[in-house]
Amino acid sequence: MSQDELKKMAGKWASKYIEDDMTVGLGTGTTVKFLVDAVAERLNNKTLKGIRAVCTSSRTANQAKGLGIPVVDLNDVSHIDLCIDGADEVDEHFQGIKGGGGAQTLEKMVATNSLRNIWIVDASKMVKQLGTFPLPTEVIPFGCERVFTKLKWAGLEPKFRLDDAGKRFVTHNGNYIIDLHLGRIDHPHKLAQYLDRQVGILEHGLFLDIVDEVVVGTNDGVREYKALR
Amino acid sequence: MSQDELKKMAGKWASKYIEDDMTVGLGTGTTVKFLVDAVAERLNNKTLKGIRAVCTSSRTANQAKGLGIPVVDLNDVSHIDLCIDGADEVDEHFQGIKGGGGAQTLEKMVATNSLRNIWIVDASKMVKQLGTFPLPTEVIPFGCERVFTKLKWAGLEPKFRLDDAGKRFVTHNGNYIIDLHLGRIDHPHKLAQYLDRQVGILEHGLFLDIVDEVVVGTNDGVREYKALR
Repeated sequence: MSQDELKKMAGKWASKYIEDDMTVGLGTGTTVKFLVDAVAERLNNKTLKGIRAVCTSSRTANQAKGLGIPVVDLNDVSHIDLCIDGADEVDEHFQGIKGGGGAQTLEKMVATNSLRNIWIVDASKMVKQLGTFPLPTEVIPFGCERVFTKLKWAGLEPKFRLDDAGKRFVTHNGNYIIDLHLGRIDHPHKLAQYLDRQVGILEHGLFLDIVDEVVVGTNDGVREYKALR
Repeated sequence: MSQDELKKMAGKWASKYIEDDMTVGLGTGTTVKFLVDAVAERLNNKTLKGIRAVCTSSRTANQAKGLGIPVVDLNDVSHIDLCIDGADEVDEHFQGIKGGGGAQTLEKMVATNSLRNIWIVDASKMVKQLGTFPLPTEVIPFGCERVFTKLKWAGLEPKFRLDDAGKRFVTHNGNYIIDLHLGRIDHPHKLAQYLDRQVGILEHGLFLDIVDEVVVGTNDGVREYKALR
Protein backbone atom coordinates (compact mmCIF):
# COMPACT_ATOMS: atom_id res chain seq x y z
CA MET A 1 0.00 0.00 0.00
CA SER A 2 1.12 3.58 -0.53
CA GLN A 3 2.19 5.68 2.43
CA ASP A 4 -0.95 7.80 1.95
CA GLU A 5 -3.13 4.69 2.19
CA LEU A 6 -1.40 3.68 5.43
CA LYS A 7 -1.89 7.18 6.84
CA LYS A 8 -5.55 7.19 5.82
CA MET A 9 -6.04 3.81 7.47
CA ALA A 10 -4.57 5.08 10.77
CA GLY A 11 -6.51 8.35 10.64
CA LYS A 12 -9.83 6.68 9.92
CA TRP A 13 -9.25 4.08 12.62
CA ALA A 14 -8.46 6.66 15.30
CA SER A 15 -11.58 8.66 14.51
CA LYS A 16 -13.65 5.93 16.18
CA TYR A 17 -12.16 6.85 19.56
CA ILE A 18 -13.91 10.20 19.49
CA GLU A 19 -17.16 10.13 21.47
CA ASP A 20 -20.22 12.36 21.60
CA ASP A 21 -19.75 15.79 23.19
CA MET A 22 -15.97 15.47 23.48
CA THR A 23 -13.55 18.38 23.19
CA VAL A 24 -11.03 16.97 20.75
CA GLY A 25 -7.47 18.12 19.99
CA LEU A 26 -6.68 17.90 16.30
CA GLY A 27 -3.01 18.04 15.37
CA THR A 28 -1.26 18.97 12.15
CA GLY A 29 0.07 17.05 9.18
CA THR A 30 -0.85 14.75 6.35
CA THR A 31 -2.08 11.91 8.56
CA VAL A 32 -4.25 14.25 10.61
CA LYS A 33 -5.79 15.52 7.37
CA PHE A 34 -7.25 12.03 6.81
CA LEU A 35 -8.44 11.94 10.43
CA VAL A 36 -10.30 15.24 10.03
CA ASP A 37 -11.99 13.89 6.89
CA ALA A 38 -13.06 10.79 8.84
CA VAL A 39 -14.38 12.87 11.76
CA ALA A 40 -16.44 14.98 9.36
CA GLU A 41 -17.83 11.79 7.82
CA ARG A 42 -18.92 10.53 11.26
CA LEU A 43 -20.64 13.84 11.97
CA ASN A 44 -22.40 13.68 8.61
CA ASN A 45 -23.63 10.10 9.02
CA LYS A 46 -24.74 10.88 12.59
CA THR A 47 -22.55 8.32 14.33
CA LEU A 48 -21.02 11.25 16.25
CA LYS A 49 -22.44 14.49 17.62
CA GLY A 50 -21.76 17.46 19.86
CA ILE A 51 -17.98 17.60 19.52
CA ARG A 52 -15.76 20.67 19.35
CA ALA A 53 -12.16 20.79 18.17
CA VAL A 54 -9.04 22.63 19.33
CA CYS A 55 -6.58 22.76 16.44
CA THR A 56 -2.79 23.08 16.51
CA SER A 57 -2.53 24.96 13.22
CA SER A 58 -4.60 27.27 11.06
CA ARG A 59 -4.35 24.66 8.31
CA THR A 60 -6.15 22.04 10.38
CA ALA A 61 -8.59 24.64 11.72
CA ASN A 62 -9.48 25.73 8.19
CA GLN A 63 -9.99 22.15 7.04
CA ALA A 64 -12.16 21.37 10.09
CA LYS A 65 -14.29 24.51 9.73
CA GLY A 66 -14.71 23.85 6.01
CA LEU A 67 -16.10 20.40 6.82
CA GLY A 68 -18.49 21.71 9.48
CA ILE A 69 -16.55 20.70 12.61
CA PRO A 70 -16.97 23.37 15.33
CA VAL A 71 -13.56 24.85 16.20
CA VAL A 72 -12.82 26.51 19.55
CA ASP A 73 -9.79 28.22 21.07
CA LEU A 74 -7.71 26.37 23.67
CA ASN A 75 -8.18 29.39 25.94
CA ASP A 76 -11.94 28.85 25.89
CA VAL A 77 -12.05 25.24 27.12
CA SER A 78 -11.20 23.84 30.54
CA HIS A 79 -9.48 20.77 29.09
CA ILE A 80 -9.31 18.50 26.04
CA ASP A 81 -10.74 15.01 26.34
CA LEU A 82 -8.73 13.40 23.59
CA CYS A 83 -5.95 14.70 21.36
CA ILE A 84 -5.12 12.91 18.12
CA ASP A 85 -2.00 13.99 16.29
CA GLY A 86 0.67 12.63 13.98
CA ALA A 87 4.35 12.16 14.85
CA ASP A 88 7.57 12.28 12.88
CA GLU A 89 9.27 9.49 14.81
CA VAL A 90 8.11 7.14 17.57
CA ASP A 91 10.57 4.86 19.34
CA GLU A 92 10.12 1.53 21.13
CA HIS A 93 9.34 3.29 24.41
CA PHE A 94 6.68 5.46 22.76
CA GLN A 95 8.76 8.60 22.99
CA GLY A 96 8.46 10.81 19.94
CA ILE A 97 9.77 13.61 17.80
CA LYS A 98 7.25 16.08 16.42
CA GLY A 99 7.50 19.44 14.71
CA GLY A 100 8.32 18.55 11.12
CA GLY A 101 5.64 21.10 10.25
CA GLY A 102 7.08 23.66 12.68
CA ALA A 103 4.04 23.60 14.98
CA GLN A 104 5.53 21.65 17.90
CA THR A 105 4.93 24.40 20.47
CA LEU A 106 1.18 24.54 19.82
CA GLU A 107 1.06 20.76 19.47
CA LYS A 108 2.77 20.27 22.83
CA MET A 109 0.51 22.85 24.44
CA VAL A 110 -2.58 21.01 23.20
CA ALA A 111 -1.14 17.57 24.03
CA THR A 112 -0.21 18.48 27.60
CA ASN A 113 -3.71 19.86 28.18
CA SER A 114 -5.37 16.65 27.00
CA LEU A 115 -6.59 13.80 29.18
CA ARG A 116 -5.54 11.25 26.55
CA ASN A 117 -3.18 11.40 23.59
CA ILE A 118 -3.24 9.19 20.50
CA TRP A 119 -0.67 9.40 17.72
CA ILE A 120 -1.55 8.22 14.23
CA VAL A 121 1.34 7.25 11.97
CA ASP A 122 2.26 5.09 9.06
CA ALA A 123 4.69 2.24 9.72
CA SER A 124 7.72 4.21 8.48
CA LYS A 125 7.54 6.48 11.57
CA MET A 126 8.20 3.65 14.03
CA VAL A 127 11.91 3.51 14.84
CA LYS A 128 14.21 1.67 17.21
CA GLN A 129 15.88 4.88 18.36
CA LEU A 130 14.99 8.56 17.91
CA GLY A 131 17.19 10.99 16.03
CA THR A 132 17.23 10.18 12.34
CA PHE A 133 14.48 12.78 11.95
CA PRO A 134 15.97 16.24 12.68
CA LEU A 135 14.77 17.52 16.06
CA PRO A 136 13.04 20.93 15.73
CA THR A 137 13.59 23.69 18.28
CA GLU A 138 11.67 26.98 18.18
CA VAL A 139 13.91 29.98 18.97
CA ILE A 140 13.11 33.66 19.40
CA PRO A 141 14.90 35.96 16.91
CA PHE A 142 16.63 38.02 19.66
CA GLY A 143 19.98 36.35 20.16
CA CYS A 144 19.15 33.37 17.92
CA GLU A 145 22.68 33.39 16.47
CA ARG A 146 24.07 32.92 19.99
CA VAL A 147 21.66 30.03 20.60
CA PHE A 148 22.75 28.53 17.28
CA THR A 149 26.43 28.78 18.26
CA LYS A 150 25.79 27.18 21.66
CA LEU A 151 23.94 24.30 20.05
CA LYS A 152 26.78 23.90 17.56
CA TRP A 153 29.40 23.85 20.30
CA ALA A 154 27.31 21.28 22.15
CA GLY A 155 27.66 19.04 19.08
CA LEU A 156 23.97 19.13 18.27
CA GLU A 157 24.41 19.86 14.53
CA PRO A 158 21.97 22.78 14.27
CA LYS A 159 20.59 24.15 11.00
CA PHE A 160 18.15 27.01 10.60
CA ARG A 161 15.07 25.76 8.77
CA LEU A 162 14.35 27.60 5.52
CA ASP A 163 11.02 28.10 3.79
CA ASP A 164 10.35 27.44 0.11
CA ALA A 165 11.69 30.90 -0.79
CA GLY A 166 15.00 30.11 0.93
CA LYS A 167 14.33 32.50 3.81
CA ARG A 168 14.21 31.49 7.45
CA PHE A 169 10.99 29.64 8.26
CA VAL A 170 8.81 31.70 10.64
CA THR A 171 6.48 29.99 13.12
CA HIS A 172 2.96 30.88 14.28
CA ASN A 173 4.64 32.69 17.19
CA GLY A 174 6.97 34.73 14.95
CA ASN A 175 10.04 32.66 15.83
CA TYR A 176 12.58 30.60 13.88
CA ILE A 177 13.11 26.85 13.78
CA ILE A 178 16.56 25.39 14.34
CA ASP A 179 16.61 21.69 13.45
CA LEU A 180 19.12 19.47 15.23
CA HIS A 181 20.55 16.87 12.87
CA LEU A 182 21.53 14.35 15.51
CA GLY A 183 21.43 11.01 13.73
CA ARG A 184 20.69 9.31 17.03
CA ILE A 185 19.47 10.46 20.44
CA ASP A 186 20.86 8.24 23.18
CA HIS A 187 19.31 10.05 26.14
CA PRO A 188 16.06 11.79 25.15
CA HIS A 189 15.21 12.92 28.71
CA LYS A 190 18.65 14.44 29.28
CA LEU A 191 18.50 16.23 25.95
CA ALA A 192 14.98 17.52 26.70
CA GLN A 193 16.14 18.88 30.07
CA TYR A 194 19.09 20.60 28.41
CA LEU A 195 16.87 22.20 25.77
CA ASP A 196 14.19 23.19 28.31
CA ARG A 197 16.89 25.10 30.21
CA GLN A 198 18.27 27.04 27.22
CA VAL A 199 17.36 30.71 27.16
CA GLY A 200 15.71 31.68 23.88
CA ILE A 201 14.33 28.23 23.03
CA LEU A 202 10.56 28.38 23.37
CA GLU A 203 9.95 24.67 22.85
CA HIS A 204 11.51 21.62 21.23
CA GLY A 205 10.10 18.64 19.40
CA LEU A 206 10.85 15.91 21.95
CA PHE A 207 7.48 14.62 23.16
CA LEU A 208 8.38 12.41 26.09
CA ASP A 209 5.94 10.45 28.27
CA ILE A 210 3.05 12.14 26.49
CA VAL A 211 1.37 9.65 24.18
CA ASP A 212 -1.02 7.02 25.58
CA GLU A 213 -1.62 5.06 22.43
CA VAL A 214 -0.06 4.80 18.99
CA VAL A 215 -2.16 3.76 15.99
CA VAL A 216 0.03 2.53 13.14
CA GLY A 217 -1.08 1.92 9.57
CA THR A 218 0.84 -1.08 8.21
CA ASN A 219 0.56 -3.32 5.15
CA ASP A 220 -0.99 -5.93 7.45
CA GLY A 221 -3.64 -3.51 8.71
CA VAL A 222 -3.79 -1.24 11.75
CA ARG A 223 -1.64 -2.02 14.77
CA GLU A 224 -2.29 -0.39 18.12
CA TYR A 225 0.19 0.05 20.93
CA LYS A 226 -0.64 1.15 24.47
CA ALA A 227 2.06 3.12 26.22
CA LEU A 228 0.74 2.27 29.71
CA ARG A 229 1.81 5.56 31.29
CA MET B 1 19.78 59.45 50.86
CA SER B 2 16.92 58.98 48.42
CA GLN B 3 16.51 55.68 46.57
CA ASP B 4 17.43 57.48 43.34
CA GLU B 5 20.68 58.71 44.89
CA LEU B 6 21.53 55.16 45.97
CA LYS B 7 20.77 53.86 42.47
CA LYS B 8 22.88 56.59 40.91
CA MET B 9 25.75 55.77 43.25
CA ALA B 10 25.67 52.08 42.25
CA GLY B 11 25.32 52.87 38.54
CA LYS B 12 28.19 55.33 38.52
CA TRP B 13 30.41 52.99 40.50
CA ALA B 14 29.84 50.04 38.17
CA SER B 15 30.66 52.10 35.10
CA LYS B 16 34.31 52.01 36.12
CA TYR B 17 34.43 48.27 35.41
CA ILE B 18 33.95 48.89 31.71
CA GLU B 19 37.26 48.85 29.82
CA ASP B 20 38.35 50.09 26.41
CA ASP B 21 37.04 48.14 23.39
CA MET B 22 34.66 46.00 25.44
CA THR B 23 31.32 44.72 24.19
CA VAL B 24 29.05 45.64 27.08
CA GLY B 25 25.57 44.38 27.95
CA LEU B 26 23.32 47.15 29.24
CA GLY B 27 20.19 46.06 31.08
CA THR B 28 16.91 47.81 31.72
CA GLY B 29 15.50 49.87 34.55
CA THR B 30 15.96 53.00 36.61
CA THR B 31 19.36 52.02 38.03
CA VAL B 32 20.71 51.14 34.60
CA LYS B 33 19.58 54.56 33.38
CA PHE B 34 22.13 56.13 35.75
CA LEU B 35 24.78 53.66 34.58
CA VAL B 36 24.22 54.62 30.94
CA ASP B 37 24.60 58.30 31.88
CA ALA B 38 27.88 57.49 33.63
CA VAL B 39 29.17 55.46 30.66
CA ALA B 40 28.41 58.35 28.31
CA GLU B 41 30.27 60.68 30.66
CA ARG B 42 33.35 58.43 30.56
CA LEU B 43 33.22 58.36 26.76
CA ASN B 44 32.93 62.16 26.68
CA ASN B 45 35.81 62.78 29.06
CA LYS B 46 37.94 60.21 27.18
CA THR B 47 38.54 57.87 30.11
CA LEU B 48 36.89 55.17 27.98
CA LYS B 49 36.93 54.40 24.26
CA GLY B 50 36.00 51.85 21.62
CA ILE B 51 33.09 50.19 23.40
CA ARG B 52 29.87 48.89 21.88
CA ALA B 53 26.68 48.05 23.76
CA VAL B 54 24.08 45.29 23.47
CA CYS B 55 20.84 46.48 25.10
CA THR B 56 18.02 44.46 26.64
CA SER B 57 15.28 46.95 25.77
CA SER B 58 14.54 49.62 23.21
CA ARG B 59 14.36 52.11 26.08
CA THR B 60 17.98 51.52 27.06
CA ALA B 61 19.04 51.36 23.40
CA ASN B 62 17.40 54.72 22.70
CA GLN B 63 19.03 56.32 25.73
CA ALA B 64 22.44 54.90 24.78
CA LYS B 65 22.19 55.97 21.13
CA GLY B 66 21.04 59.43 22.18
CA LEU B 67 24.18 59.79 24.31
CA GLY B 68 26.49 58.60 21.53
CA ILE B 69 27.13 55.05 22.76
CA PRO B 70 27.39 52.67 19.77
CA VAL B 71 24.65 50.05 19.99
CA VAL B 72 24.90 46.65 18.28
CA ASP B 73 22.61 43.63 18.00
CA LEU B 74 23.32 40.52 20.09
CA ASN B 75 23.21 38.51 16.87
CA ASP B 76 26.14 40.53 15.50
CA VAL B 77 28.66 39.90 18.31
CA SER B 78 30.41 36.68 19.28
CA HIS B 79 30.06 37.36 23.01
CA ILE B 80 29.60 40.11 25.60
CA ASP B 81 32.56 40.93 27.85
CA LEU B 82 30.60 42.42 30.72
CA CYS B 83 26.89 42.78 31.36
CA ILE B 84 25.64 45.30 33.91
CA ASP B 85 21.98 45.16 34.83
CA GLY B 86 19.65 45.90 37.72
CA ALA B 87 17.71 43.34 39.74
CA ASP B 88 14.39 43.36 41.56
CA GLU B 89 15.54 41.12 44.41
CA VAL B 90 18.89 39.60 45.34
CA ASP B 91 19.15 37.05 48.14
CA GLU B 92 22.05 36.09 50.43
CA HIS B 93 23.28 33.50 47.92
CA PHE B 94 23.26 36.06 45.11
CA GLN B 95 20.32 34.48 43.37
CA GLY B 96 17.93 37.02 41.91
CA ILE B 97 14.54 37.91 40.56
CA LYS B 98 14.39 40.12 37.49
CA GLY B 99 11.69 41.13 35.06
CA GLY B 100 9.82 43.87 36.88
CA GLY B 101 10.02 45.71 33.56
CA GLY B 102 8.85 42.66 31.62
CA ALA B 103 12.17 42.25 29.77
CA GLN B 104 13.51 39.18 31.61
CA THR B 105 13.77 37.01 28.50
CA LEU B 106 16.04 39.46 26.67
CA GLU B 107 17.89 40.20 29.93
CA LYS B 108 18.54 36.51 30.55
CA MET B 109 19.63 36.04 26.93
CA VAL B 110 22.17 38.86 27.25
CA ALA B 111 23.29 37.75 30.73
CA THR B 112 23.89 34.14 29.72
CA ASN B 113 25.97 35.29 26.75
CA SER B 114 28.21 37.48 28.91
CA LEU B 115 31.58 36.50 30.35
CA ARG B 116 30.87 38.48 33.51
CA ASN B 117 27.68 39.78 35.10
CA ILE B 118 27.35 42.67 37.54
CA TRP B 119 24.07 43.72 39.13
CA ILE B 120 23.60 47.26 40.38
CA VAL B 121 20.95 47.84 43.02
CA ASP B 122 19.98 50.07 45.88
CA ALA B 123 20.03 48.54 49.35
CA SER B 124 16.26 47.85 49.36
CA LYS B 125 16.72 45.09 46.77
CA MET B 126 18.90 42.94 49.03
CA VAL B 127 16.71 40.36 50.80
CA LYS B 128 17.17 37.35 53.03
CA GLN B 129 14.89 35.20 50.89
CA LEU B 130 13.44 35.65 47.40
CA GLY B 131 9.73 35.89 46.72
CA THR B 132 8.33 39.12 48.13
CA PHE B 133 8.77 40.59 44.66
CA PRO B 134 6.31 38.87 42.28
CA LEU B 135 8.15 36.47 39.97
CA PRO B 136 7.48 37.28 36.28
CA THR B 137 6.91 34.55 33.70
CA GLU B 138 6.55 35.28 29.99
CA VAL B 139 3.83 33.17 28.35
CA ILE B 140 2.72 32.83 24.72
CA PRO B 141 -0.93 33.83 24.10
CA PHE B 142 -1.88 30.41 22.65
CA GLY B 143 -3.19 28.43 25.61
CA CYS B 144 -2.15 31.06 28.17
CA GLU B 145 -5.38 30.50 30.14
CA ARG B 146 -4.43 26.84 30.56
CA VAL B 147 -0.94 27.84 31.74
CA PHE B 148 -2.57 30.26 34.18
CA THR B 149 -4.84 27.52 35.55
CA LYS B 150 -1.92 25.10 35.97
CA LEU B 151 0.08 27.71 37.86
CA LYS B 152 -2.95 28.43 40.04
CA TRP B 153 -3.48 24.75 40.84
CA ALA B 154 0.21 24.51 41.66
CA GLY B 155 -0.38 27.17 44.32
CA LEU B 156 1.84 29.73 42.61
CA GLU B 157 -0.66 32.63 42.90
CA PRO B 158 -0.54 33.80 39.27
CA LYS B 159 -1.83 37.15 38.05
CA PHE B 160 -1.74 38.46 34.49
CA ARG B 161 0.20 41.73 34.42
CA LEU B 162 -1.79 44.68 33.11
CA ASP B 163 -0.53 47.82 31.39
CA ASP B 164 -1.49 51.36 32.31
CA ALA B 165 -4.64 51.11 30.18
CA GLY B 166 -5.76 48.04 32.15
CA LYS B 167 -5.10 45.68 29.23
CA ARG B 168 -2.75 42.71 29.35
CA PHE B 169 0.89 43.84 29.23
CA VAL B 170 2.52 42.72 25.96
CA THR B 171 6.27 41.96 25.84
CA HIS B 172 8.87 42.67 23.16
CA ASN B 173 8.18 39.14 21.88
CA GLY B 174 4.40 39.68 21.68
CA ASN B 175 3.69 37.57 24.76
CA TYR B 176 1.97 38.13 28.12
CA ILE B 177 3.46 38.32 31.60
CA ILE B 178 2.02 36.23 34.42
CA ASP B 179 3.44 37.34 37.78
CA LEU B 180 3.64 34.76 40.55
CA HIS B 181 2.81 36.31 43.93
CA LEU B 182 4.66 33.79 46.04
CA GLY B 183 5.58 35.69 49.17
CA ARG B 184 8.59 33.43 49.66
CA ILE B 185 10.50 31.01 47.44
CA ASP B 186 11.98 28.21 49.50
CA HIS B 187 13.59 26.27 46.66
CA PRO B 188 14.52 28.61 43.78
CA HIS B 189 16.27 25.89 41.74
CA LYS B 190 13.33 23.50 41.98
CA LEU B 191 10.91 26.24 41.01
CA ALA B 192 13.12 27.26 38.06
CA GLN B 193 13.24 23.66 36.83
CA TYR B 194 9.46 23.40 37.11
CA LEU B 195 8.95 26.64 35.16
CA ASP B 196 11.58 25.72 32.52
CA ARG B 197 9.60 22.54 31.85
CA GLN B 198 6.20 24.19 31.42
CA VAL B 199 4.95 24.34 27.85
CA GLY B 200 4.04 27.88 26.83
CA ILE B 201 6.36 29.66 29.27
CA LEU B 202 9.15 31.27 27.25
CA GLU B 203 11.22 32.41 30.23
CA HIS B 204 10.88 33.29 33.90
CA GLY B 205 12.52 35.88 36.11
CA LEU B 206 14.59 33.58 38.32
CA PHE B 207 18.24 34.40 37.58
CA LEU B 208 20.14 31.65 39.35
CA ASP B 209 23.93 31.23 39.44
CA ILE B 210 24.28 34.05 36.93
CA VAL B 211 25.62 37.13 38.68
CA ASP B 212 29.33 37.41 39.51
CA GLU B 213 29.23 40.62 41.49
CA VAL B 214 26.59 42.80 43.13
CA VAL B 215 27.16 46.53 43.56
CA VAL B 216 24.85 47.97 46.21
CA GLY B 217 24.20 51.64 46.85
CA THR B 218 23.73 52.13 50.62
CA ASN B 219 23.57 55.09 52.96
CA ASP B 220 27.13 54.17 54.01
CA GLY B 221 28.37 54.22 50.42
CA VAL B 222 28.82 51.49 47.83
CA ARG B 223 29.15 47.89 48.97
CA GLU B 224 30.40 45.20 46.64
CA TYR B 225 29.77 41.49 46.94
CA LYS B 226 31.51 38.77 44.92
CA ALA B 227 29.42 35.69 44.22
CA LEU B 228 32.49 33.47 43.64
CA ARG B 229 30.84 31.22 41.06
